[in-house]
Amino acid sequence: MQPVSPEIFRQTLESMHIPNIASATIRQIAALAARLREPLGEDFIHLEMGNPGLPPSAVGIEAEREALLDGVAGTYPNIAGIPQLKEAGSDFLRAFFDIDIPARCIVPTVGSMQGTFTLFLLMGQRIPGKDTILFLDPGFPAQHNQVKLLGLGHRSVDIYDCRGEALEARLEEACADGKVSAIIYSNPNNPAWTNLTDTEYRILARIAEKHDILIMEDNAYLGMDFRRRYGIPFREPYIPTIAKYTDRCILLVSASKIFSYAGQRISMVCFNPAAADREYKFMRDFYEMPTLIDAYIFGVLYCASSGTAHSAQYAFARMLRHAVEGKLDFVADTREYGRRAALAKKLFLDNGFHLVYALDGKEPISDGFFFTVGYPGMTGSELQSDLLRYGISAISLPSTGSRQEGLRICVSMLNTPESFERLGQRLSQFHRDHPVK
Amino acid sequence: MQPVSPEIFRQTLESMHIPNIASATIRQIAALAARLREPLGEDFIHLEMGNPGLPPSAVGIEAEREALLDGVAGTYPNIAGIPQLKEAGSDFLRAFFDIDIPARCIVPTVGSMQGTFTLFLLMGQRIPGKDTILFLDPGFPAQHNQVKLLGLGHRSVDIYDCRGEALEARLEEACADGKVSAIIYSNPNNPAWTNLTDTEYRILARIAEKHDILIMEDNAYLGMDFRRRYGIPFREPYIPTIAKYTDRCILLVSASKIFSYAGQRISMVCFNPAAADREYKFMRDFYEMPTLIDAYIFGVLYCASSGTAHSAQYAFARMLRHAVEGKLDFVADTREYGRRAALAKKLFLDNGFHLVYALDGKEPISDGFFFTVGYPGMTGSELQSDLLRYGISAISLPSTGSRQEGLRICVSMLNTPESFERLGQRLSQFHRDHPVK
Repeated sequence: MQPVSPEIFRQTLESMHIPNIASATIRQIAALAARLREPLGEDFIHLEMGNPGLPPSAVGIEAEREALLDGVAGTYPNIAGIPQLKEAGSDFLRAFFDIDIPARCIVPTVGSMQGTFTLFLLMGQRIPGKDTILFLDPGFPAQHNQVKLLGLGHRSVDIYDCRGEALEARLEEACADGKVSAIIYSNPNNPAWTNLTDTEYRILARIAEKHDILIMEDNAYLGMDFRRRYGIPFREPYIPTIAKYTDRCILLVSASKIFSYAGQRISMVCFNPAAADREYKFMRDFYEMPTLIDAYIFGVLYCASSGTAHSAQYAFARMLRHAVEGKLDFVADTREYGRRAALAKKLFLDNGFHLVYALDGKEPISDGFFFTVGYPGMTGSELQSDLLRYGISAISLPSTGSRQEGLRICVSMLNTPESFERLGQRLSQFHRDHPVK
Repeated sequence: MQPVSPEIFRQTLESMHIPNIASATIRQIAALAARLREPLGEDFIHLEMGNPGLPPSAVGIEAEREALLDGVAGTYPNIAGIPQLKEAGSDFLRAFFDIDIPARCIVPTVGSMQGTFTLFLLMGQRIPGKDTILFLDPGFPAQHNQVKLLGLGHRSVDIYDCRGEALEARLEEACADGKVSAIIYSNPNNPAWTNLTDTEYRILARIAEKHDILIMEDNAYLGMDFRRRYGIPFREPYIPTIAKYTDRCILLVSASKIFSYAGQRISMVCFNPAAADREYKFMRDFYEMPTLIDAYIFGVLYCASSGTAHSAQYAFARMLRHAVEGKLDFVADTREYGRRAALAKKLFLDNGFHLVYALDGKEPISDGFFFTVGYPGMTGSELQSDLLRYGISAISLPSTGSRQEGLRICVSMLNTPESFERLGQRLSQFHRDHPVK
């Protein structure tokens, strides 16, 4: 394989009106890779995409097809969610997190994208003057865009150099002026695949209580810290969650990755009851409904889409129920991502790369859906550009809110032995052509 | 039947924290009716709800079940829509409206609720200083809430006393200061079931061009002006639309009512190509994408939900395709609403009621999904309250943006001969107890 020449690479970027590759969206990078395929003469290795990459849950498909036969397409879904989903969601949280969130506090959304978008809107309203969202970065780029689109204040703490006890001072600094209404993070972290430690959860809880902040915990990759054997219902170890440390929290659980069900856009927002039932003057005046959860369901979600596709709710309910009953081991099913990550990491590390986010406390991070890499002497955008020339597409760390130089690597599309072989060859060629001084 | 006593009615209202019945939401009225069922001792007649009330399209269900078997649940849908849906949508608009909107300008949304919510957001951004939405009222209450939730300017023209040529001066007055970015209406009108006339379309087009306004045409009840035989593909008469009069328009076409498919939350936003491709400074600066349609799809819709349930897109595509091919006569199927409206109208008119919005030009309005009634000597909220006492629930005209005294009547739930019989008995009892002076 001949890498694409720097000249053709530059011309292609220009023709696509991408002035700065480091701030390009995932979609733009995918489109750029599609354009570069011809001069490369071979297919790209796509490490930028977060498609599930596993077959969707058969149980979900079966439930959804049955519901359609039953005629659910003909009637509006209850905006608060069908009872089966709310109840299965509550049991799921008890079975795998060991927490108690009642069915009434669980609300389906059109994927966690709608979940965070609509929650951010509400977080910007709940208390006058508190209109800022704080990100524990790196994070999911789209959530940053949501906050910008809603016109809310935006702050970011890059956890790279403040893990453990060091987190407290950094959060305190970001929250001291009282403007932060919510803190959001994903756990495992997209893209660093770090997992918060007990020390860090305690700090988050203290900060939330001290500054009247709600913690939004995005569990898109729930249970995928494969260092522990999570995912056996009602049995330890339970998956760590902020809900064990404070009641000022809202959890998001999406079917997209845990059940490989991204196509149907179904997720659930789970309010801690204390957070759900708290009354606000704003909610009373604006929505004529004083509690946060009523304002969310009947004020915001009703306006956003009048609920979530009826049949997809039945699918999600069935998948959650089967997981609770021990009939669907979603952690074992998604363990495949860990296997791919271990293989891919080795290929990168053998060819001069290093992990950017590497540890949780003193423990090496888990293998999973994503990891982060850097290369000596190269900035993130140099590395991203040069790997694209070698037929490997990935997004840069700065686009995830990280301040570090490097890339986000997603293993979901590495789904054949050949794709690993080709990745190894290209990284090796890249390494030969980019000797480390 | 004994009507609920005024005393119990008042106590129930108080216990539900409804200070003003005229501004209560549809959901609140439905909940109030549920509470009043016990003191009434009989089931309510629900005229407040807009559930389809017909079985969902079998063709859609079949397509959706097939797509699920094919595994579409496992991959993110293209945010711009699956090609089959975009192409079937384009052909559908040509077949029934006789207009030419290319597939690339058609985008699926999570129902037209997401369509209007996300479009309003964009309408508030496109030109600095133009941040107001003008409603041709009466209208769908939820759309008013959306504009309020987005913090945009809101204006309303009640068409009651400005039909025909009189519309121009009223629109001119509302738009003269240049702040109006978009005008929205539904046609047939929800709830008045009026239809715009040729004169009115010409005026709307002139105003749109004069003041650089985009017209958002909500076709939720497409073809349901049963005075003409619409709905035969590629044959006159074609359904009237603003798109024949100006290119400054965006059409919304939902599957909820025309295919009785509300449960799956699937709709399409159809941009006139000139509106889609127009470049804006704001879109370039904020989204790094200059055209309205790119900013909409990749900027707004991506943030709002990352697309629309994959299988529902296949359902909608197949239903549209069958309609285009003359195999699914959605106008004949929905004619049932016209039949119900004719019966229900007669019961109201025989018992002292009158139509509030009664004419299009000189022609009586069509029968359809909704109509509007008043009763001599009673305000809208008096009428709403007293009918509730008699076991009939409906929403008030002021909640739809109308300035008239009266109620919106929805016939979708009148689905048995017994329900008509019971409605007739209750209206007759109401009429006896409320003699017209």
